[in-house]
Amino acid sequence: VEGIARQRILPLETLSRLPVYRQKLRQLREDGVDTVSSLELAKQLGVGDAQLRRDLSYLRLLGRPGRGYGVRHLEEGITRALGLDRRWPLAIVGCGSLGTALARYEGYARDNLVVTAIFDIDPAKVGKKVRSVTVSHIDEAPRVIAETGVELAVIAVPSSAAQHVADAMVRAGVTALLNFAPVALAVPAGVIVRQMDISAELQILAHLKIVENG
Amino acid sequence: VEGIARQRILPLETLSRLPVYRQKLRQLREDGVDTVSSLELAKQLGVGDAQLRRDLSYLRLLGRPGRGYGVRHLEEGITRALGLDRRWPLAIVGCGSLGTALARYEGYARDNLVVTAIFDIDPAKVGKKVRSVTVSHIDEAPRVIAETGVELAVIAVPSSAAQHVADAMVRAGVTALLNFAPVALAVPAGVIVRQMDISAELQILAHLKIVENG
Repeated sequence: VEGIARQRILPLETLSRLPVYRQKLRQLREDGVDTVSSLELAKQLGVGDAQLRRDLSYLRLLGRPGRGYGVRHLEEGITRALGLDRRWPLAIVGCGSLGTALARYEGYARDNLVVTAIFDIDPAKVGKKVRSVTVSHIDEAPRVIAETGVELAVIAVPSSAAQHVADAMVRAGVTALLNFAPVALAVPAGVIVRQMDISAELQILAHLKIVENG
Repeated sequence: VEGIARQRILPLETLSRLPVYRQKLRQLREDGVDTVSSLELAKQLGVGDAQLRRDLSYLRLLGRPGRGYGVRHLEEGITRALGLDRRWPLAIVGCGSLGTALARYEGYARDNLVVTAIFDIDPAKVGKKVRSVTVSHIDEAPRVIAETGVELAVIAVPSSAAQHVADAMVRAGVTALLNFAPVALAVPAGVIVRQMDISAELQILAHLKIVENG
């Protein structure tokens, strides 16, 4: 039953909100809160009550009338639904200033994400350590990825190199990519790409500011 | 008429795709391509032809039957629609490894974005330069923001400090924030917040990988 519930396809909008819900629930738990009503939780999240309850019902997470949701139960349910109740080995590709910042990021552990590989092409960087991980040459990707069980790769290289890197990751067996380079990557069917485009976000922000503030 | 077209409210989904279209058109222009059919452009972008034409029709950008779209005309139309045909002074708040990477990012100029201010609270960082911009103490934000005309701020501080920083930016008159800290910010009406949550993106990617690859 758990397997079925986990693999059920969630609306992408719902999925996009789950990490935010999870973060708020963690904070409530750390603050010693045991139960929370959907109304109060929705208010704290700045979302609609009906939307929150609908999102949670996709995960078969239901509150109890008059008692609300158990905070820990809800947090664990979302963690399980996201698939974060097991370890996710992660590669960072590109060891420039962005890649280094991403490799040093301290928040992975609470999501069960572990940086197990870092790649670059610069001989001056290969062999150095970022935290406890040694930087490998990208040509070593098939071996390093197999050895460390990498399942997700973060692409933090210049735009001109991003497609090449994506191809190398896919060839090495990685089927889920988070791409920071502002280019659309071409990948085979079955490979998932999510785009983190700082420049695009700033362009959208500029537009929204004009619309909102004139 | 241009003012009206620019302030027209676009569907958020359309808006989210415009930077990607713009990037592809820039690339085509640099490759010496003068005109492109919607079918060919859609194919290169990996989107549907009908969706592309619908998105562009919101901007009143129309192709000519049998000739397609003028690449430069389309690129300039999207740039204008986004509001990037004028300069956008930008502040980076937080000068840790992520903030430094963001301050050093070289892609801003082609979007008419200019980093004019960098803030931190660490006395060891205040006064230093990142590229040509001197790091200021966050307490100096009202003065520095007024002097350099900052309109957008990027928040790259630890989660525990993000709300405090957002409050300081809003007090200093900045009404558009791009937040890298994985917390939901509370802001007054009229202030726009976009979230860049690396951790959330990786959680979503992990879930999609389970759904897709089992």
